[in-house]
Amino acid sequence: MTGPESSGRGDSRPATPRYDALAAELAAMIGAGQLRTGDRVPSVRTLARQRRVSATTAVAALRSLERRGLVEARPQSGFFVLPRPQRSPLPVASPPPRSARDVRVNSLVNLLNAAAFDRSVVPLGSAIPEPAWFPARALQRLAARAARRMPALSAGYPALPGLLALRHQIARHYAGLGCRIDAEELLVTSGCMDALNLCLATVAAPDDTIAVESPAYFGFLQIIESLGMKALEIQTDPRTGLSVDSLEQALASRVGPRIRACLLSTTFSNPLGATLPEEAKRRLLRVCREHDVALIEDDIYGDLNFAGARPLPMKAFDRHGQVMLCSSFSKTLAPGARIGWVAAGRWSDAVRLRKYTSSIATPELWQEALASYLRSNAWGRHLRSLRQSCARQVERFSTAIEEAFPPGTRLSRPEGGFVLWAELPAGCDSLALHARARAEKISFLPGTLFSASGRHSHCLRINCGRNWTPRVAAAVQRLGDLASQP
Amino acid sequence: MTGPESSGRGDSRPATPRYDALAAELAAMIGAGQLRTGDRVPSVRTLARQRRVSATTAVAALRSLERRGLVEARPQSGFFVLPRPQRSPLPVASPPPRSARDVRVNSLVNLLNAAAFDRSVVPLGSAIPEPAWFPARALQRLAARAARRMPALSAGYPALPGLLALRHQIARHYAGLGCRIDAEELLVTSGCMDALNLCLATVAAPDDTIAVESPAYFGFLQIIESLGMKALEIQTDPRTGLSVDSLEQALASRVGPRIRACLLSTTFSNPLGATLPEEAKRRLLRVCREHDVALIEDDIYGDLNFAGARPLPMKAFDRHGQVMLCSSFSKTLAPGARIGWVAAGRWSDAVRLRKYTSSIATPELWQEALASYLRSNAWGRHLRSLRQSCARQVERFSTAIEEAFPPGTRLSRPEGGFVLWAELPAGCDSLALHARARAEKISFLPGTLFSASGRHSHCLRINCGRNWTPRVAAAVQRLGDLASQP
Repeated sequence: MTGPESSGRGDSRPATPRYDALAAELAAMIGAGQLRTGDRVPSVRTLARQRRVSATTAVAALRSLERRGLVEARPQSGFFVLPRPQRSPLPVASPPPRSARDVRVNSLVNLLNAAAFDRSVVPLGSAIPEPAWFPARALQRLAARAARRMPALSAGYPALPGLLALRHQIARHYAGLGCRIDAEELLVTSGCMDALNLCLATVAAPDDTIAVESPAYFGFLQIIESLGMKALEIQTDPRTGLSVDSLEQALASRVGPRIRACLLSTTFSNPLGATLPEEAKRRLLRVCREHDVALIEDDIYGDLNFAGARPLPMKAFDRHGQVMLCSSFSKTLAPGARIGWVAAGRWSDAVRLRKYTSSIATPELWQEALASYLRSNAWGRHLRSLRQSCARQVERFSTAIEEAFPPGTRLSRPEGGFVLWAELPAGCDSLALHARARAEKISFLPGTLFSASGRHSHCLRINCGRNWTPRVAAAVQRLGDLASQP
Repeated sequence: MTGPESSGRGDSRPATPRYDALAAELAAMIGAGQLRTGDRVPSVRTLARQRRVSATTAVAALRSLERRGLVEARPQSGFFVLPRPQRSPLPVASPPPRSARDVRVNSLVNLLNAAAFDRSVVPLGSAIPEPAWFPARALQRLAARAARRMPALSAGYPALPGLLALRHQIARHYAGLGCRIDAEELLVTSGCMDALNLCLATVAAPDDTIAVESPAYFGFLQIIESLGMKALEIQTDPRTGLSVDSLEQALASRVGPRIRACLLSTTFSNPLGATLPEEAKRRLLRVCREHDVALIEDDIYGDLNFAGARPLPMKAFDRHGQVMLCSSFSKTLAPGARIGWVAAGRWSDAVRLRKYTSSIATPELWQEALASYLRSNAWGRHLRSLRQSCARQVERFSTAIEEAFPPGTRLSRPEGGFVLWAELPAGCDSLALHARARAEKISFLPGTLFSASGRHSHCLRINCGRNWTPRVAAAVQRLGDLASQP
C-alpha cells in the first residue's frame, strides 16, 4: 500500500509535511481500532520501508503521536498505543416517538443549501468531499476520449439500464468484496438520490410508513416528504446503527398502517457513521422478509472504510431479492458525473420502468469514462488513498472538536465515511448556533434536519471531507467557542 | 437559407438526388400550407439561385411535383399549386369520457419500448429522430474540449439550477422568438421528462385530476400514472389542438375533485401535430388562471416548424407565472445528452427544491458543450436544416401512407415535428396490427397508448424522423397491406 503522497495521481494534494501525514494515518488507525490500546505501533524501520519515508520522518511521526498522548515510547521496545480516557463519550439519544410522522424538512434543507456554493463560507455542512481528493484530470481525460471516439453518444437516446461496460465494472467491484450482484440486475441512475427515489416510489405509496434510522440522513427524509409518505424513526446505536429489536417491536406492535419499507444506510451511516454488524444485517433481512418490508440500502459510504476490509453490504446476504442496493460514485470518485446505480432485487423491472418514466435513461458519456477508469489499476490506488484521506481528516477533526467544544460534548466515532455527529450538552440549540456560525461564514448542519419529529436539536453534523488548513482549524475552534457561549 | 446538402455539417446525410430533396422540400411547403392552392411556385431561376442548384435540378424537381399531382405547369407563367382533393381527411375522434380515470399505460409502454434498441426492427414507433440529423461530431468535440479545460467538472457537485452559460443561451433562444424568459427562472433538468415530472409533482398530489389532450402523449399519461394521479381527457381538434371550450366546460361542471393542472403540448403536439392558435393560447391561459389550474406546457417540438416563423409558446403570453414551460434538446440537438429545462413561473422555487431532492442537480459537461454550440452560428444553420428534414420526411411518409393504407384512413397534417397520427377505418385494432407488424420487424405505436380510457384503438402513431430508405418505404407499404387485411 502506497501513501497518498506517492499515489501517482496528477491532482493537487494537500501540502502537509510527510511526518504529519503519516502521524495522522497512524492516529486514524488507532481511532478506528485497527491499532488498539497496548498494541505495538509498527517500528521506525518498518514504517520507513513500507511507507517509503526516511527514518527521520518515521521518528517525527511517532514523536508527534507521543506528544498528542496517543502512544508512549517504551525503552528498547518501541511505541505502544495508550488508552484514551479523555476521549469524548459517544452520543446517546432518547427513544424516538412510536408513531409515524409527516416530514417537513425540505424548506430547512433549501435554506441550508444556499451556502453550498458560497466560497466565502467554510464548508463544514454538506457532505461534499474536497474536490482535490478525486482524480478529476484522469477521469476527464477519459471523458474527452469517449466524446471523441464514440460517435453515437449525443445523437441517440441512451440505453435504459445503462452502459453494460459500466454495469460490468460495478458488478466486478462488488464481486471483489464478496457480494454477488449480476450486471443484469443493475440499473444506472442519475446519482444515488435518483436511485433512492425510484426505489421508494416503487415499493410504497403516499401516506405509507417508512422506517428510518434516528438520526437519519436528511436526504431520506426529503424523499419521504416529497413522495407524501410518513417516517417512523427507529432507535439507533452510535456504533452498531439501527436497532433491529426496535424495528421488530414496531413491526409487531403497530396498529396503524404497516411499514412498507426501511430506508437506511447499513455501513458507515450518515450522520452517525454507524455500521450494522454482519449478524444484525442478516437478522434485519430475515425480519423484513417475514414482514414483507422492502429494504432500501444506501451504500454510498460503504467503500470508505478507514482500515481493514470494508463491511459487506446487506445485499450480500440477500437470497430473495428483498434488498434494493443504492449507491453512486459521488463520494468516491466523481460527484459531478451524477452517476449512481441500483440493484433492486425483485423490484428490478418496476424500478427500470420508473426510471424510463422519470428521465428516460442516464446519459452515457460519464458512464463510459467511469467504466474505463474502473477497468484500470488507478481505481484501487485511488480508493486506498481516498480512504486514508478520510481516516486522517476524521481523526483530525475529532481531535480538534474534542479540544474546542464545551465539556459534555459527545462525539461519534465512525470507522468510515467523512462526517461526524456531535451531541452538545443538553440545552444547546444547534439551529441558533447555526445562525451565529453562518454570520461568521462557517457552515455545518443542525441536528433537527436529521429527524422527522424535531429531535436532535442539540446535535450537529460536521463534514470532515476537507483538507486541514488554518482556515478550517480556525473555523472548528470558533464553532467550539460559539457552542460554549450561552 | 442553404439546403441540407450544403449545410456544412460533418455528419452523414441521406443519399438523395438533389432534385428529389428539393421536390420534397417544396412538397412539404405545400403540405404545410406555406404554398397554397393557386400559388405560384418559385421559378426555376429563383430556385436555382436561392437553393444553389443547377437549372436542370430545379426543373427536375418541379416535374416531379407535377407527376405527383401537386402542381401544374401553365404556359409562359410557371408552376402553380393544385388543389389536393385526394388528400386523406383529418382524423376525427368522438368526445372523450367526462370523468377522470386512473391511468394504466406503463406496462404497455414497457412492452413496446423493448423494440427501441433492436436494430433489426424498422423503428417507426418511438419518436426518435435519425441520429445523422444531429451535429454529433461538432457537439462531442465541444464536450471533449469542456472535459479537458474545465477542471472541476467531475470532482465537484454541479450547481443546482444548471450552468448559467447554458441558461443564458436558452433564454436568448426564446428572446429571439419574442418570448421573454429570464435565465434566473430557468432550471436545467435531465431532459424534458424530468422537467415534466418535477412540475406535475410540484403542483398536484396523488388522486388529483390532471387535464390532458385526447389523444395525449403517452409520456404524460405515464407520469400521471406513476404519480398516482388521474387523467381527464379533453377533446382536441387535429389542427388546433386542445378544445378550450371543452376544458372550460369541464372546469365549470365537474362535481368531483377539481382539476389541478393541465399537461399539454400547445405547439406541434404529439401525436396529433396540432397547434393552438395564438388566441386559443391566450384564452387557455385566462381560463386556467381564473380556475387556478397550473399550465404545464411541453414545448419539445416547438422549434421544428416546417415553414415560416415558429408559433410562440403559451409561456410568451403569461404575465402571472401560471405556465411551467418544459422542453429539451432531445428532439433538436442531442437526445444522448439528456439535457432539458423548465421555466416554472410562480412554482420555480418549489420545482428547484424538488430537483435537488430527486437527483441533486444535472451534470455540467453536456451543459457546457451545448452552451458553446448555441453560442455559435452552427445552431441556427442546424435548426434550419433539421426543420427541412422534418418537413421533407413528414411529407414523404404522408404520401406513402395515403397510397398504402386502406381507403377510409384519416391522417394528421402537422406543420411541425416529425410524427403522424393515422386513424384507420372503424373496426381496425391497432394493437393486433402492432403484433402482426412486430412479427415482421416493423414497429409503430398503437393508439391505445395515447389514452387513459382505452380510446383510439383504431389509430396509430408513426415516427417519420427517419431517412426515406427502401427499407423504410417497404415497411410503410407492408404496414398498409397489413392494415388492409381483415
